[in-house]
Amino acid sequence: MSDVIEALERALGERVRREPEILSAHARDSWSLAELLDYQGEPGPAPIAVVEAADTSDIASTLRLCRQHRTPVVVYGGGSGVCGGIRVGEGTVVLSTRGLTGLVAIDDNDLTATFRAGTMGGDAERTVQEHGLTIGHWPQSIEISTVGGWVATRASGQYSTAYGNIEDIILDLEVVLPDGQILRTKRTPRAAAGPDLRQWFLGSEGTLGVVTEVTLSLRPLAEHHVRQAFHFETLRAALPTVQKFMREGWRPPVVRLYDPRESQRHFGDACPKDRAMLILLHEGPKAAATTEADAVAELCRTAGGEPADASAVDEWFDKRNEVPSFRSLAEAGLVVDTIEVASTWQHIANIYEAVTKSLDEVPGMLSATAHTSHAYRSGANLYFTFVAKPADQASMADTYRECWDRAMRATLANHGGIAHHHGIGRVRRDYLVEEIGKVGVALLSTLKRALDPDWLLNPGNLLPLPSAKNGD
Amino acid sequence: MSDVIEALERALGERVRREPEILSAHARDSWSLAELLDYQGEPGPAPIAVVEAADTSDIASTLRLCRQHRTPVVVYGGGSGVCGGIRVGEGTVVLSTRGLTGLVAIDDNDLTATFRAGTMGGDAERTVQEHGLTIGHWPQSIEISTVGGWVATRASGQYSTAYGNIEDIILDLEVVLPDGQILRTKRTPRAAAGPDLRQWFLGSEGTLGVVTEVTLSLRPLAEHHVRQAFHFETLRAALPTVQKFMREGWRPPVVRLYDPRESQRHFGDACPKDRAMLILLHEGPKAAATTEADAVAELCRTAGGEPADASAVDEWFDKRNEVPSFRSLAEAGLVVDTIEVASTWQHIANIYEAVTKSLDEVPGMLSATAHTSHAYRSGANLYFTFVAKPADQASMADTYRECWDRAMRATLANHGGIAHHHGIGRVRRDYLVEEIGKVGVALLSTLKRALDPDWLLNPGNLLPLPSAKNGD
Repeated sequence: MSDVIEALERALGERVRREPEILSAHARDSWSLAELLDYQGEPGPAPIAVVEAADTSDIASTLRLCRQHRTPVVVYGGGSGVCGGIRVGEGTVVLSTRGLTGLVAIDDNDLTATFRAGTMGGDAERTVQEHGLTIGHWPQSIEISTVGGWVATRASGQYSTAYGNIEDIILDLEVVLPDGQILRTKRTPRAAAGPDLRQWFLGSEGTLGVVTEVTLSLRPLAEHHVRQAFHFETLRAALPTVQKFMREGWRPPVVRLYDPRESQRHFGDACPKDRAMLILLHEGPKAAATTEADAVAELCRTAGGEPADASAVDEWFDKRNEVPSFRSLAEAGLVVDTIEVASTWQHIANIYEAVTKSLDEVPGMLSATAHTSHAYRSGANLYFTFVAKPADQASMADTYRECWDRAMRATLANHGGIAHHHGIGRVRRDYLVEEIGKVGVALLSTLKRALDPDWLLNPGNLLPLPSAKNGD
Repeated sequence: MSDVIEALERALGERVRREPEILSAHARDSWSLAELLDYQGEPGPAPIAVVEAADTSDIASTLRLCRQHRTPVVVYGGGSGVCGGIRVGEGTVVLSTRGLTGLVAIDDNDLTATFRAGTMGGDAERTVQEHGLTIGHWPQSIEISTVGGWVATRASGQYSTAYGNIEDIILDLEVVLPDGQILRTKRTPRAAAGPDLRQWFLGSEGTLGVVTEVTLSLRPLAEHHVRQAFHFETLRAALPTVQKFMREGWRPPVVRLYDPRESQRHFGDACPKDRAMLILLHEGPKAAATTEADAVAELCRTAGGEPADASAVDEWFDKRNEVPSFRSLAEAGLVVDTIEVASTWQHIANIYEAVTKSLDEVPGMLSATAHTSHAYRSGANLYFTFVAKPADQASMADTYRECWDRAMRATLANHGGIAHHHGIGRVRRDYLVEEIGKVGVALLSTLKRALDPDWLLNPGNLLPLPSAKNGD
């Protein structure tokens, strides 16, 4: 252990940090269960060192030295993940990308911007907005997540229905491989030049390499916006309308349909009690945005949707990224989390009902609700929120695990995909085999082994450990 | 050699074919150079057997037996590839997917259709059109390529500007791995469940596995169509207009801009001499299609585009998949091929000029022309066609290689990506390192070795052989 630290300090000097508050601040991401265990006095191990890398070369050196010393290494960006993608085991070095910040280049003609991976999302978006452009990627975590983290976790943003998910927005990547070699993909809008290597790292969650630079394909800020809202009898009753306008080819950037309980929580008086609220943003050239808004409004009205005050949409925009901390909820004795899944249209309403019903059976369940916020031609996601208050504080972690298990099992039993955009981490790791099969897990493990034979990059995340290795 | 055939015949009976005409018909794809060499009496080796697989299980058995006997195996779909992706070496078994045909299931509600991989593209499209739906994927090869081949080669279709390329159209895959195991990916519209395993096989060109089933995400046939055309001074002068409407967010499915020589060739009188023709198809709900057509027409006129008779567009539609055979051209002493590349907007016109200029310097060059047919926010493709008639018939192959080398070098020198949608095959194999770097090639080779340690699946294609192995 002291060997690897000495080697790192020799190579990287003061960028190797060992202050206890820095170590403990890098032990994990924002996973609800980790917050809960932390609050209950089980914080888990801290890393032995945090390398505050300043550039790609520091990342490569750290990976090489950790490999030489067979030391586990966990990459840390914004730390905003909610799936336990970061949770260090004993003797682990954390490699922070937060020193790799800022714009490398922006090209208004090509609509490209290249950022170092540790750039915070909000900073990146504000930078391109100064040029009249937008990334069009609005995860709720935009102010606390990094551009590199978006890639590593396969993130989605609130405008994905029109603008796609992160894999549709990136153009090229720089990635440091586990052996310290640097991959640079080609800057081209599309290629048929073998398998798309960017995809190996999209969703790799720190297990296959470290994203160090990201080029995004931008858009101009839209000329015109239309916000509108409609309420329907139930979530199930409104889903076919969303499906219908997706089917016809309309693509509002924001399409959010809430079940009646969430509608009441988020929109209050703007949505009558026991109704399901649908909020929409249309944008683009004025003629396009208004044509789409009119067509979608007509479909909503025909299907029995009642127009709601559009100021409710404005209010959602203002507050959309405000969330209470899991810690404050744990302190109030509440077990809380969000779970996003996806499926094709025929299964969505069934999954909604099966998951909420199963969660409602958990002792102490106060609320199990959902909305859909990412729509596709062939299906959509569901985003569940549960709040439980177990009678016994000591059983909070067990309650948490039971809720997740019920949500995953009900989703799988109804043909759902287990993860829409938060990722796998540790919370879904043991369900991954039901998503991609034993063959899929073996395939990922094969690549992992080939690139990282000692299984040192974020061991225990995404994939089960291959044998009796340490790590959670 | 006889061992593997005996083993295959024991397992697969009459599905193992050894008739000379069947063997010679499966020795290669439609690569221009292979056609030329064939015509010149150098057809190359024929396979030792062709397995006409009837189902996924036959594919798995064949791969397992070939692995046991260390026999190279090359997958054959429609044979329409033009890059030498199929060109068997000595002692090779060809595995034909053409027996795996037909629709497995179609779901009009989910907009999904699952086809066995050997289904011909045109048959697949006609099948879904009977349900009022479309795949929206229109490669020129649609009548001679298979659905599985589309995936294996990362194909693009003529409507890609609105509907995306094959990676944007597929939903889930079944793939047989080199060891005979079967991977089935999840049917979900989007997932953040580790790296997207479908992407390992998109563009793998028969080197990493065999695609056996493909589920596509469909669209309803459009309600309304607008076809229009404009002509501009030059290709360079017209490119900023295409860029501008892409930038504003308009997405006509068909956007094809031809240089003056191709405009004359394809559109004759509809396009005045020495002008560059832009043809457009807009489609969707009537309000959307007309709004887009009007906005794009206004942009074209403002930029100096002159309206052309839209019947020229109809004519293009009628004849769009008619191409002379490379064989007939070779017999006429002509060296002919098409080369598609891509880049960001700032480089496209430079690449057009650099490639055509360099090709024009080749002795015997009759015509080097191009159009762009796939547009993106950040760039576009270029599709070159060259026709040369070397004075000496014996130097036709050398002329061919020189043309390709010049096109690749001029593209790379001007920051272009070497392959937009035809793939790598053998014709671009030695340039791949300039697209994805030595690290990229090593990374692909690492996965190849991990899945196919004896390098038996389509050896010599896509990647250089690892050592002194056989193969072209």
